[in-house]
Amino acid sequence: MREITIRRPDDFHVHFRDGGALEWIPLATASVFARALVMPNTEFPIRTGPQALAYKQRIIEALSLEPSIVFEPLMTIMLTPETTPDTVAKARENGVVAAKLYPRGATTKSAHGVELSKLGDLLEVFNAMEETGMVLCVHGEDPDVPILEREQAFLPVLINLADGFPRLRIVMEHVTTRAAVTTVVSLPDRVAATITAHHLRLTIDDVIGGRMRPHHFCLPVAKTADDRKVLRDAVMSGNPKFFFGSDSAPHPIRNKECEEGAPGIFSAPVALPILAEIFDGSGHLDRLEDFVSRFGAEFYGLPLNNETITLTEKRWSVPSLWGHARTFGCNEPLHWAVAP
Amino acid sequence: MREITIRRPDDFHVHFRDGGALEWIPLATASVFARALVMPNTEFPIRTGPQALAYKQRIIEALSLEPSIVFEPLMTIMLTPETTPDTVAKARENGVVAAKLYPRGATTKSAHGVELSKLGDLLEVFNAMEETGMVLCVHGEDPDVPILEREQAFLPVLINLADGFPRLRIVMEHVTTRAAVTTVVSLPDRVAATITAHHLRLTIDDVIGGRMRPHHFCLPVAKTADDRKVLRDAVMSGNPKFFFGSDSAPHPIRNKECEEGAPGIFSAPVALPILAEIFDGSGHLDRLEDFVSRFGAEFYGLPLNNETITLTEKRWSVPSLWGHARTFGCNEPLHWAVAP
Repeated sequence: MREITIRRPDDFHVHFRDGGALEWIPLATASVFARALVMPNTEFPIRTGPQALAYKQRIIEALSLEPSIVFEPLMTIMLTPETTPDTVAKARENGVVAAKLYPRGATTKSAHGVELSKLGDLLEVFNAMEETGMVLCVHGEDPDVPILEREQAFLPVLINLADGFPRLRIVMEHVTTRAAVTTVVSLPDRVAATITAHHLRLTIDDVIGGRMRPHHFCLPVAKTADDRKVLRDAVMSGNPKFFFGSDSAPHPIRNKECEEGAPGIFSAPVALPILAEIFDGSGHLDRLEDFVSRFGAEFYGLPLNNETITLTEKRWSVPSLWGHARTFGCNEPLHWAVAP
Repeated sequence: MREITIRRPDDFHVHFRDGGALEWIPLATASVFARALVMPNTEFPIRTGPQALAYKQRIIEALSLEPSIVFEPLMTIMLTPETTPDTVAKARENGVVAAKLYPRGATTKSAHGVELSKLGDLLEVFNAMEETGMVLCVHGEDPDVPILEREQAFLPVLINLADGFPRLRIVMEHVTTRAAVTTVVSLPDRVAATITAHHLRLTIDDVIGGRMRPHHFCLPVAKTADDRKVLRDAVMSGNPKFFFGSDSAPHPIRNKECEEGAPGIFSAPVALPILAEIFDGSGHLDRLEDFVSRFGAEFYGLPLNNETITLTEKRWSVPSLWGHARTFGCNEPLHWAVAP
């Protein structure tokens, strides 16, 4: 039986939701990952440092029911038209590591986000982020163009942000296209991208090819086999610009299997095993650790985790229902498992 | 209040299902359309003339509960690897007007269909169809390529069929792309295409743009705004190669709003009002009648209907639930209605 022991990983993009959902969602992440960057688009979005701090406390409190868990939530705030340089400075004092730009209308709970045509109004906010070292995370889609072109249409915005703010560190989240990977590669080292486990696995055929699969539906939607190949090549390349963010985003099943299904894939319980399978399948299992445990931490200027985690090659199935959500990958056997 | 009176229309592509579903599905069509071409991909596919005749009787019997309804089902058989020239000849004797080619794996209940690589085995069947004047209807998708390329990938097959059988009348069903329209236009007059109401209305953004909408999901899936424009131009052009087939395909809601939603849009209750709205919106309401009441009948060599039907401009909403299915267009107001 093959196994691999790696430094304990981090997940630089998760959705923990809020309220009662905290009883079951963070645990799926925290039992594997040492740290996770928690997105701010909750029902009542996290817009300030004090809100982020209070949210962090709610997460830690929920996890305290499992005293063996050692986990650190890394907090974010949402950029809104009301965000000021002072918001940024105070959030930094409260330990917030990143601010998230949601183009208004692009995805779940983005109604509070910023219209792309009004990014200029945030000039001083971006300056304050440069000053204080706060990372800018972007949902890189322009919601005003057709769904399959949205990521590509956002790239000029990314380039303008990188050019206009020469000290700003930027992460384009959950990239899905050849165009986005190529653009991120071409920009300075302070511009990076997260890649999810599900975008390394799915194409649009897994979403609407013959059957409509709401549990394979997320934003940005999975693209072509060519795009997926480019994503796989990027994570296998050892380029530190590309690191792991699961975008694990659970919804109650009733909000997925319905007339207007919400975007989001709940991958936290299986993300690391799926990554191991993909890296192993490409003959690059030795590069998994850098992707999940090193490059992200280094980009964010965080110490590497000291603990380790072991994965064993083993055929198993994940429970279909996990909390109130359907688990990604529950209908196929998995080939790697986190050792207990 | 504007109104328009046209010759009663026909629908050259419907799915009536079978069994208990016949209690509610055919009525939605028969109360508006004088005739409809009934597809053979029922739970137990219709493969022979006697099966088609028995199925026709079941449809007529179900409709007999509404004695005011005057409606003629036009019957089809499914081509399978077992279809013979004798099957075709007998089916013609039983009044079957068309045989449907489902590439195996392309859509609902197509497991009995024919692999595209084995079409050559049907040479004598196609010859018999030429001899007897049976129309070949094709689901024009190659299931072995990615979902958005399937229709285009099928076009060489269509061209080969048209070239190889110089007297065969062929209908490419529910075309969705610029490429398909262009190809159909380029082929002889005996090659035509149906176009649905929903493909004149939707793009892929209505299927997976932001939300996942199972009741907008069908095969072939709706494509881009450019493709939709080409479809609209085709139906407004007055080219008799393009006529109406709704592909109305109801599924119980539980088979749509679920983990693996079935393809199919139930448009029968609203198809004619939606067409009127689209034709009116393009300033070509005068061309609606040819599209729904003339070109199809002429292609099939059927007499035109003598009765008329009147549409009035009127804002209304269709019931969301119709039988066991969700009705297409139930979430938006409709602007034309069939006069009682």
